[in-house]
Amino acid sequence: MVTSFFTCTKTISSLAIAAVLTGGVAAPSLAAAPAAKQEIHEGTKKNKNGNAAVEAIAEQALSTVQVVATGYTAGYESTGKRPGHPQYGITYSGVKVRRGQVSTVAADTKLFPIGTLLYIPGYGYGVVADTGSAIKGHRLDLYFETIKDVYKQWGKRTVDVQVLRKGNGKLSQSWLNQINRAVEAGKPIPQTYLES
Amino acid sequence: MVTSFFTCTKTISSLAIAAVLTGGVAAPSLAAAPAAKQEIHEGTKKNKNGNAAVEAIAEQALSTVQVVATGYTAGYESTGKRPGHPQYGITYSGVKVRRGQVSTVAADTKLFPIGTLLYIPGYGYGVVADTGSAIKGHRLDLYFETIKDVYKQWGKRTVDVQVLRKGNGKLSQSWLNQINRAVEAGKPIPQTYLES
Repeated sequence: MVTSFFTCTKTISSLAIAAVLTGGVAAPSLAAAPAAKQEIHEGTKKNKNGNAAVEAIAEQALSTVQVVATGYTAGYESTGKRPGHPQYGITYSGVKVRRGQVSTVAADTKLFPIGTLLYIPGYGYGVVADTGSAIKGHRLDLYFETIKDVYKQWGKRTVDVQVLRKGNGKLSQSWLNQINRAVEAGKPIPQTYLES
Repeated sequence: MVTSFFTCTKTISSLAIAAVLTGGVAAPSLAAAPAAKQEIHEGTKKNKNGNAAVEAIAEQALSTVQVVATGYTAGYESTGKRPGHPQYGITYSGVKVRRGQVSTVAADTKLFPIGTLLYIPGYGYGVVADTGSAIKGHRLDLYFETIKDVYKQWGKRTVDVQVLRKGNGKLSQSWLNQINRAVEAGKPIPQTYLES
């Protein structure tokens, strides 16, 4: 199927959304079919950065709100409940946790009442279904199926690290203890530890 | 103690490093003593963004390398070992995992041999002590004591979310199932679901 750029802008906008949804590392479940991908390519030639897609979602939006978002799971580390607990995997709203086209997320219901539908860049669509003791104000907790998913799909940062000393392949407990004692709070690494 | 800005640049640089180390949300253990904080304030008046501090660390550095960093713990989700396992909490190098002034981190030893000392923005000093099956090339795994620490200290993003529908305080399993079926891969939210 070939979609004309001139006569089918609406379709192109919709498909451009797919580019955003499938482009993020955090939304593997939102993969578009190959045919749709081709159309996205056709339709977004002039929008390499997906600006058209972002605009298309913004067109649907009532407002944009900046929040700090973390990930969570149904597991003990996040909910204090283990599999077998009668409320395991059940959100505050009563629905089961879900990672899908529209996932369940936790919010402060004073800001986002239960049932609020959000688009979260890098995650996808989320519906407010849950709450959390630390989720107050401009905070969101995004549901993931496993702890590893949180680490890999949300807890990832690109950083420029400084290499202060190249290792020689060995590390001893006494050296590690020493350097930890030597580097006092607010002090740089003593020069003697930087010599390989 | 008063430190002159003109006669004690070295001291100021060192203390400016403290500003970076204690400024990051991810390094609560690196808090400087109140007296040192005062000096940082004196010394960095003209460097509100901590540029001097970053430069001071860079002065110590052999090189700067861009990496993608995730967090991990000694626990089952990251290592497959539970407390009680003879190798629980022991890194590839043989030293115990540590979150301190200098923490243990995992890297690809072809790029960063064991014993390599790094400064990781938002985390602090890290020494390469561990490896991981997914930690190949320009990847780092940063040790944290708990899963919650990974979530809160590393897995946090500031995002602009789009509010597509304001919830009415209720959410039913059937509506969540319906919307998940209705929102096909690569399609926008149908209008009917956006009406509260």
